[in-house]
Amino acid sequence: MKPSVDYTLYLVTDRDLMSTPTLEEAVEQAIRGGVTLVQLREKHASSLEFYQTALRVKKITDSYNVPLIINDRVDVALAVDADGVHVGQSDLPAARVREILGPDKILGVSASSLKEALKAVEDGADYLGVGAMFATGTKTDADITTIEELKRIRQAVSVPIVVIGGINKQTLPLFAGTGIDGIAVVSAIIAAADVEKAARELKELFKQIT
Amino acid sequence: MKPSVDYTLYLVTDRDLMSTPTLEEAVEQAIRGGVTLVQLREKHASSLEFYQTALRVKKITDSYNVPLIINDRVDVALAVDADGVHVGQSDLPAARVREILGPDKILGVSASSLKEALKAVEDGADYLGVGAMFATGTKTDADITTIEELKRIRQAVSVPIVVIGGINKQTLPLFAGTGIDGIAVVSAIIAAADVEKAARELKELFKQIT
Repeated sequence: MKPSVDYTLYLVTDRDLMSTPTLEEAVEQAIRGGVTLVQLREKHASSLEFYQTALRVKKITDSYNVPLIINDRVDVALAVDADGVHVGQSDLPAARVREILGPDKILGVSASSLKEALKAVEDGADYLGVGAMFATGTKTDADITTIEELKRIRQAVSVPIVVIGGINKQTLPLFAGTGIDGIAVVSAIIAAADVEKAARELKELFKQIT
Repeated sequence: MKPSVDYTLYLVTDRDLMSTPTLEEAVEQAIRGGVTLVQLREKHASSLEFYQTALRVKKITDSYNVPLIINDRVDVALAVDADGVHVGQSDLPAARVREILGPDKILGVSASSLKEALKAVEDGADYLGVGAMFATGTKTDADITTIEELKRIRQAVSVPIVVIGGINKQTLPLFAGTGIDGIAVVSAIIAAADVEKAARELKELFKQIT
């Protein structure tokens, strides 16, 4: 059975930006601060390292009943029995991923436009990561999605939408009234001096604007 | 059903060493020269690029009834319905890969020692890639396996063994009497000015020494 998911505050990891000594500490502090979903993203790790990291992180997410999503690597997700996979536009095609994963795992897909969003839903996406909303240091090559395009996507699809790319305390108020289900955050949580506090403040602010 | 596999001449691709304009041409010429098995290895490609390349190469291997093995990425192998996967010691653990792949796909595992070989067979390997037998430009960080260790592995396991790492016309005669089932070759085929001829000569020589 696919778990019911709270998309409010979605942490996407980035080992290069961590303020804590280990990724596990960052994830645990973020969950204590209110993160509801964790995506493990490892762009430089070997498959074995990715697998071993995922096993360690999953112990933490499982203990808090927070779903763990694996970025890109469907095989790693299957190997650790993660709750799902998130794929971008340069990863395996979403429709093939859905076939490999089966119906019970969560499939998230990145979409920067209405066209990509419609295709993703058709291909079996359970939620959309829409963005990048702003240019960021994390993803310098990302296509930028306007607030207007986000609203068009929101009108066109019924699956949950999280926005990603430059989401922080300063930019979050811009999403008031857009009907998003949550925010996906990398550096505004993982690079914060106090990870737990950063997560808590973002969650409070999100509740205020929605 | 798992296909019956001829391990005699196993081509492992390397885009950086190609002498032909495209990988597809290299693979087709190599098969015409006598390659019996192809492993697609893409260390720098995005998941989407790996998938798309695998689809193109699979059209060729299928048309010659040559099995296609995917290096490392179990998800790519599943997405293109390849004949199997080859994993090294820094990839996903072989036992987990076997579980994900099911019993009908070919699972190859790299082993540089008797210990790794025994573990691989226990984990479900259908064949072993033993080496690196010699230091090569392709894999400069590989552990070197001696001919004596290869013979110990041959005595200890019954699955097919291919040797890899610096296998070429000069080194091949050293494997006379070792009981190997085939040779895995990267640069001695893929970087040759005449790929088809290089494959043919290696296959002839292999038949002479075994």
